[in-house]
Amino acid sequence: MTGPGKRAVERLDLLGGISDEPGRLTRTFLSPASCIAGEQVMAWMRELGMAVDRARDGTLRGILPGPNSDAPPLLLGSHLDTVIDAGRFDGALGIVAALAALESIDGPLHFPVHVLAFSDEEGVRFHTTYLGSRSISGPLDARTLAIRDSSGVSIAEALENEGFTGSADIHYEPRSIRGYVEVHIEQGRVLEEAGEPVAVVTAIAGQSRLSLTFTGRTDHAGTTPMTLRRDALAGAAECVLHAESLARANPPLVATVGMLHPTPGVSNSIPGSATLSLDFRHPESVAHRTLLAQLHDTCTQVAQRRGLTLDWSVIQENGPVPCHAILTRQLATAAVAETGSCREMISGAGHDGVAVSTVGPIAMLFVRCRDGLSHHPDEFASPEDIDTAVRVLARFLKSLA
Amino acid sequence: MTGPGKRAVERLDLLGGISDEPGRLTRTFLSPASCIAGEQVMAWMRELGMAVDRARDGTLRGILPGPNSDAPPLLLGSHLDTVIDAGRFDGALGIVAALAALESIDGPLHFPVHVLAFSDEEGVRFHTTYLGSRSISGPLDARTLAIRDSSGVSIAEALENEGFTGSADIHYEPRSIRGYVEVHIEQGRVLEEAGEPVAVVTAIAGQSRLSLTFTGRTDHAGTTPMTLRRDALAGAAECVLHAESLARANPPLVATVGMLHPTPGVSNSIPGSATLSLDFRHPESVAHRTLLAQLHDTCTQVAQRRGLTLDWSVIQENGPVPCHAILTRQLATAAVAETGSCREMISGAGHDGVAVSTVGPIAMLFVRCRDGLSHHPDEFASPEDIDTAVRVLARFLKSLA
Repeated sequence: MTGPGKRAVERLDLLGGISDEPGRLTRTFLSPASCIAGEQVMAWMRELGMAVDRARDGTLRGILPGPNSDAPPLLLGSHLDTVIDAGRFDGALGIVAALAALESIDGPLHFPVHVLAFSDEEGVRFHTTYLGSRSISGPLDARTLAIRDSSGVSIAEALENEGFTGSADIHYEPRSIRGYVEVHIEQGRVLEEAGEPVAVVTAIAGQSRLSLTFTGRTDHAGTTPMTLRRDALAGAAECVLHAESLARANPPLVATVGMLHPTPGVSNSIPGSATLSLDFRHPESVAHRTLLAQLHDTCTQVAQRRGLTLDWSVIQENGPVPCHAILTRQLATAAVAETGSCREMISGAGHDGVAVSTVGPIAMLFVRCRDGLSHHPDEFASPEDIDTAVRVLARFLKSLA
Repeated sequence: MTGPGKRAVERLDLLGGISDEPGRLTRTFLSPASCIAGEQVMAWMRELGMAVDRARDGTLRGILPGPNSDAPPLLLGSHLDTVIDAGRFDGALGIVAALAALESIDGPLHFPVHVLAFSDEEGVRFHTTYLGSRSISGPLDARTLAIRDSSGVSIAEALENEGFTGSADIHYEPRSIRGYVEVHIEQGRVLEEAGEPVAVVTAIAGQSRLSLTFTGRTDHAGTTPMTLRRDALAGAAECVLHAESLARANPPLVATVGMLHPTPGVSNSIPGSATLSLDFRHPESVAHRTLLAQLHDTCTQVAQRRGLTLDWSVIQENGPVPCHAILTRQLATAAVAETGSCREMISGAGHDGVAVSTVGPIAMLFVRCRDGLSHHPDEFASPEDIDTAVRVLARFLKSLA
């Protein structure tokens, strides 16, 4: 391969070897490997002639001021941390693609460009996501700082005692940026099924996580006629299928039951209760709420008809984040010029753009990945597709006034 | 209470206090409490003028030879063992009801009566049922004798080292008995819902126990559109509902999914596989096989339509055991005379009669129990209902030529 993506692919290989664990890739918030990987990224930024900052939490910034350094900067980047036993592409691709695109451009751009490498998107250590990208809009709030890891160390304590020294404050006021553009592997199968290398993202879906419990009556499987049963698992099974058909009828809604636990959970007892998880994602706020309410009504009717009770608990809710229409169109135009076509799609997974959207408009370019596989050592995006993504990003940058 | 059931109720209270564990009722195969409870039952048998045997395994027999001691005997009884943390009625009721019925009859019967108290029906220690009632048709086979308990002791070793001494061989040839009649609590809700004290059993249902595994593909809950999913749990949910509707449409079939385990079993992953238990019971052999084959076909179609594979494994199969038509009619006639009506029902649970049926015809009388509850310390049958059952059994015995 000789295109502008060549260095990006080499750098992904190199970063993929910087791990906290032997034999597999794990690089978490404030860890030794995060520090080493960060120093490597800072070296590449300096090669590009960038001024480089590192925040106490490990988030990095490389600045190309351009001829008009007072203009609102365009932000590029992604996260440098990984899950446990991770692949090499999730996060790191967005950083190396930004650097490679900038390297491939002859002459300066007419606006400042900041490349960001966020310290924590995956939330492995503190089970709270976007610590890096949330920090750029201001200090983390007291409630977040008090969150503790499994050793009892709080985020505040970790920043104080383990934070990187000589560190800068990387901060943006709301509406102070031209935009934020992130290249990321798709982590799904849509592009692979379509046979296309890249797509633009129109929105990051909102997500509701719920826990539903149907309660009926435990009875003997042999001695209880069907007419006398109050089978909680049968109610839960109806709920699984109603969630599925609601989502099938209302794309791009996705609804998933991943956990289902009947009690007592023995073969010769009718389950007296059944608890299930519901993961519900839609890119439009009103449709999300309306469809979820519709499913709630259906499940309530199922419970009533079966003589069951239903406990419907919302565990977590994140609203959808739309991508910026104009930035996204400009990115799509560059993609069409490079590849002949450009699909628009929803991101069902969360990304740093969710947090960065509090300071300005965002856009995302998805890159095809093999088998939709992510958060796994076999995660893979081809060198050709990475090269395409780098070319699209470079063309997009050059197209901006 | 002054009826013939009074002593039966008092004896249930007494036996309920003879336990291997303080504070709860547990009385298992060859245990010290089983020995003590057996000696108590033998004393009651001797009070009735019976000749008493005890087999090495603890199964007891009391014989009233009657004027014609060469005639085939009528067997009465049930099991003396219990589950762990048991109720007082399951098993013991059949023994004390038989003794109380015989006590209430003035003058001898015209045929021999044997009261049996089987040593093991519940199978707690060796996880194999009917050890006591199976033994009366001949020695246990070598494969059964080799079964080991959780300490590694085989049934053969337990009988050799822990078996009761001075023990008799209690044995019946096929077709050598007039019949076996057992009084047992219903262990279900049918009589309670109907407001009736007793019913006759027309058959002990056959039971198939299966394990079904649907296999699809694990994918990300957020990034996989509904059209690209191969959701194993959704297939399993359809199976739960098909089993339920098949049974509803074909009484007295009962079909139960008690266990359901999706994998990986996390809220943000589409389950790549789902394993469920299926408990399937019907009193007629042909219908049982036909309906189970029908469910298999339906589940196979579900799997094909969804791009899943289905593993359908039969873990255990016991054929149904019909009760004897004439004995059952005679028992029902006695019940009608005592209570004004008598329902016929299926036993969905297994009983000693399954094993005794290898040596002769069987019949059963079910007694209403509270909330369908059994295998639980709150298990309860009222003194009035027990008295009714004893009167029905006595009237039945007197009605036999």
